[in-house]
Amino acid sequence: MTKTYDVSAIGNAIVDVIAFADEAFVQKNGVQKGTMMLIDEQRAHSLYDAMGAGTEVSGGSAANTLAGMASLGAKTAFIGKVFDDELGRIFRHDMRAVGVDFDTPSATSGRSTARCLILVTPDGQRTMNTFIGACNELYESDIDEALIATSRIVYGEGYMWDMDCTKSALRKAFALAKKHGAKVAFTLSDVFCVARSRDEFLALIASDFDILFCNEGELAALYPDLSWEAQLDAVQKSCPLVAVTRGEKGSIILTPSERVTIAPAAVTKVVDTTGAGDLYAAGFLYGLTHGKSLAECGRLGSACAAQIIQHLGARVQQPLKKLVA
Amino acid sequence: MTKTYDVSAIGNAIVDVIAFADEAFVQKNGVQKGTMMLIDEQRAHSLYDAMGAGTEVSGGSAANTLAGMASLGAKTAFIGKVFDDELGRIFRHDMRAVGVDFDTPSATSGRSTARCLILVTPDGQRTMNTFIGACNELYESDIDEALIATSRIVYGEGYMWDMDCTKSALRKAFALAKKHGAKVAFTLSDVFCVARSRDEFLALIASDFDILFCNEGELAALYPDLSWEAQLDAVQKSCPLVAVTRGEKGSIILTPSERVTIAPAAVTKVVDTTGAGDLYAAGFLYGLTHGKSLAECGRLGSACAAQIIQHLGARVQQPLKKLVA
Repeated sequence: MTKTYDVSAIGNAIVDVIAFADEAFVQKNGVQKGTMMLIDEQRAHSLYDAMGAGTEVSGGSAANTLAGMASLGAKTAFIGKVFDDELGRIFRHDMRAVGVDFDTPSATSGRSTARCLILVTPDGQRTMNTFIGACNELYESDIDEALIATSRIVYGEGYMWDMDCTKSALRKAFALAKKHGAKVAFTLSDVFCVARSRDEFLALIASDFDILFCNEGELAALYPDLSWEAQLDAVQKSCPLVAVTRGEKGSIILTPSERVTIAPAAVTKVVDTTGAGDLYAAGFLYGLTHGKSLAECGRLGSACAAQIIQHLGARVQQPLKKLVA
Repeated sequence: MTKTYDVSAIGNAIVDVIAFADEAFVQKNGVQKGTMMLIDEQRAHSLYDAMGAGTEVSGGSAANTLAGMASLGAKTAFIGKVFDDELGRIFRHDMRAVGVDFDTPSATSGRSTARCLILVTPDGQRTMNTFIGACNELYESDIDEALIATSRIVYGEGYMWDMDCTKSALRKAFALAKKHGAKVAFTLSDVFCVARSRDEFLALIASDFDILFCNEGELAALYPDLSWEAQLDAVQKSCPLVAVTRGEKGSIILTPSERVTIAPAAVTKVVDTTGAGDLYAAGFLYGLTHGKSLAECGRLGSACAAQIIQHLGARVQQPLKKLVA
């Protein structure tokens, strides 16, 4: 079948509510810096009441990646669930406005559109508190086989592994990808996600994933008993293509036969690291679907990540296309 | 009566939806760069559909000024009308989170919370398209006499002069200010506002306003037949204290007996000029209510404006208090 889409992705459809906070506030509110924590609606209200004035920007890990890819010029489609409310309309608009196809129907019963309360500390680090809301209403029936069949790569996020129904939806998407000859790509998302689903992730890496994204912390959580070098060996043996991001140390790309070290891109001032990994994946997957070498894929990933961390929010504000040149 | 508040303000309660746009998009969509245009709900939908991915930040001219003042350390209160919806809750949260008292009840019938679709062009200039929504439901009964009585300065925005009911609310607030010995401050807001209400503004300046804010364009619209020097003479004769902002040329402060020229503050990169005038007023009014000289008031205004134009949105992201030192 003709491959219309470079990447289709299944992800949580979330609007981020971002505020600067000091270290004391983060500590006092019992959140662990640099991680993502799931919170219920009551906690979402009390934390929102306590936090500073916010900036609302559409987010969601895989959604951020697709938005970045679309801005680079790729053809992408998103599968995810918003509620039929104001934040849901904002999320849908922001996907379509940047050129991502997004046709999953909105939920009309159940909980409201997901929001992630993000506290950005003076070091630029983000701490995420997610009320998952309507994201939890994504079912296998929402996975459009025609869309998967016409995609080169099908991409999923580790965050979705926290809920049984979204996990089932993702499994269905991966099975359809195999059926229709699409590559399966996945991000481990967060150290806590890895801790919660370690055995399943190890099995998926060994059997289902063609492309894996993770950062150093997530890789260490995957192989808690191994040294850094042994972690790299282990994942290199398990998965055909792995990109490990290392923050200001750049990234490393692994295939069964090679290791490509990527230097970080220049950054003037880190404002907010939210979305750094998502945008690295955007640049990397754009390169991969546009005939670039692995080194070029990595450099484009770094360049996109560098753009996103210099402003608030994880969505591109200015077109990324100039980075391709 | 004890003056609890440095400034209370009556203003439009608006959430800004900000997107970068190129010059061609602005021209094609029939908006005049650098101005504010009122749009109806249908137009709000069609323009939103056409514009790029947005960043949502609470806005509203007088509300931005109070948020800036609160961030500087002033005691402020806001009177304005949101609807009881998601954007209304965002607006109220963002006011309270920065320390502004805001207790005007939300509307529960009528139109939704106001939004302003803001197109930011590569030169950093903003073009504003406002769906005024629930702002139009602010009535004289919403003006809390006890609040006005306990304020040193009562501040209003020219934008509110476009609607009869909000105009009445503002007139009531000014009358109560006079009754209770508060100064009346006002911003002319926009050249089109001045064009629409020129005669009324001239009368108010001559009789009601103690402090007036405007930019060069608005001053010229107020006295269309006069030269720049003659405009300054005219407004200087009419109002006890006037601050005229001049963009990258700084500002000039006029009293019946003096003219103080203020240099612009240093700016590394202009991202979005939205809120520059609002934050100038914040710094100026903070200075005025905290025993500063007019030159210091002007410099603080310039410093606050310089902060706001270096990121997206017209609300302070980081505390401004360090600027006071």
